Amino acid sequence: MYSVRMRSAQGGAHEVGGRHISGAERIVSQDMVEQTTNAMLERAFSHTRGKADFINIVVEKIQENKVQEVPLLSVQTVSVCDVPVGRHTAQSVLAQAGVTSLAAQIGMTALLSLADSMGGAMLLCAVTGRRLDDTGSRGVRVSRMDIADEQGVTALLADRGINNTHVREALVLASKVAAAPGMVAELCWSDDPEYTTGYVASPAGYVRIPHCKPLGSLLGGRVFFVKPDVDIDIVKDYLSHQPVLVGLTYR
Amino acid sequence: MYSVRMRSAQGGAHEVGGRHISGAERIVSQDMVEQTTNAMLERAFSHTRGKADFINIVVEKIQENKVQEVPLLSVQTVSVCDVPVGRHTAQSVLAQAGVTSLAAQIGMTALLSLADSMGGAMLLCAVTGRRLDDTGSRGVRVSRMDIADEQGVTALLADRGINNTHVREALVLASKVAAAPGMVAELCWSDDPEYTTGYVASPAGYVRIPHCKPLGSLLGGRVFFVKPDVDIDIVKDYLSHQPVLVGLTYR
Repeated sequence: MYSVRMRSAQGGAHEVGGRHISGAERIVSQDMVEQTTNAMLERAFSHTRGKADFINIVVEKIQENKVQEVPLLSVQTVSVCDVPVGRHTAQSVLAQAGVTSLAAQIGMTALLSLADSMGGAMLLCAVTGRRLDDTGSRGVRVSRMDIADEQGVTALLADRGINNTHVREALVLASKVAAAPGMVAELCWSDDPEYTTGYVASPAGYVRIPHCKPLGSLLGGRVFFVKPDVDIDIVKDYLSHQPVLVGLTYR
Repeated sequence: MYSVRMRSAQGGAHEVGGRHISGAERIVSQDMVEQTTNAMLERAFSHTRGKADFINIVVEKIQENKVQEVPLLSVQTVSVCDVPVGRHTAQSVLAQAGVTSLAAQIGMTALLSLADSMGGAMLLCAVTGRRLDDTGSRGVRVSRMDIADEQGVTALLADRGINNTHVREALVLASKVAAAPGMVAELCWSDDPEYTTGYVASPAGYVRIPHCKPLGSLLGGRVFFVKPDVDIDIVKDYLSHQPVLVGLTYR
């Protein structure tokens, strides 16, 4: 198995100040590597956020016995009429998951105050809302994950009328994140200007919330709320380095 | 135009101590990017030095008006019967190019003392033989170059019976290197265990020397001899970052 990951930027590499355009994560067999990198290149060249002029692709062998299988989160969509209601709903779902209203408020504000989208996520304390990672505007990248049973997940999402790339990829990422040590909940909305549906995910499930941001907005990001006593290096290492395949088994 | 470059290693990424397996450099139009990355992946997976388990590919847009065209070096093959004669010949050609015998001896010893192959090159003073770069066992990578007229170069090399990947790529690299500010000469032999022909290149031409190392040896590398008064940062920047197309015009 190979972890294939791509990140793309505009105005040069991320490291030299380029603007993040897109990222992608797959775990595939060797005979699928070329097909996977080709799809990633096409995506980087034709993203709604702009055309990348810097694309970095890494192909890395992973030991199959080191891959952890985690369950796919159950999906639910709540119905909201506009952005204020959408954001209020997000805060309620965060509260149900165990995030204090102070931390939820701080996390929401952090996402809304971004100068530009982050490639990675901010890690906040679920009690105090204090930021716990030291990755600045880059954020912690969630890497090395894919779907164990692609046909099964595709069928499941198609059945609910939500089988699109956004949902599929976000659900895989959120399922990996929810299984992280000390994870309480995740708040996310996309940086794709044409995609306004965000979500709150926790070990209890993945709650889709339409209208988390106005149509046309290029600002999106992720906030992970973790327990106060968690070892942040262990969480970061799991998120970035632990290979994970997301299975169809529900919790 | 896009610079497409690949580096591969075994035992993890180069940065974490992986062993360098192969590298490749192209400058191509956008419609050739996928074909180019696919060829690079196939190469990394099937190199004579071993199968890579870490592959990094970067695709980066370059401004056409920033591309420098440099002439292709003229090619000559000298006839030598064995490795000692081959190495002695290399030292003579280096001397003709303006490298002192002290510096040539130090450069040769440096290549022969490598614990493992280097992805990049060592920069030595052409007078004293002192190492001038600070890149350690990684070396200075020569990057962002390709052939301007691929058919023309292929025809020229085929005409001489030396149209293989080794010669084509080395000749492009050596032509870029020879045009660097303050460059006196280059000494190189491959890390491919099945390819024993090395070369000495200078602005005066590219001299192929069969039997620079014994068949089966995995040790190869590059030494660049530069003038004592050169600004090493300018040389490094040109070698690693200046996009160069190598034309058919001879000097």
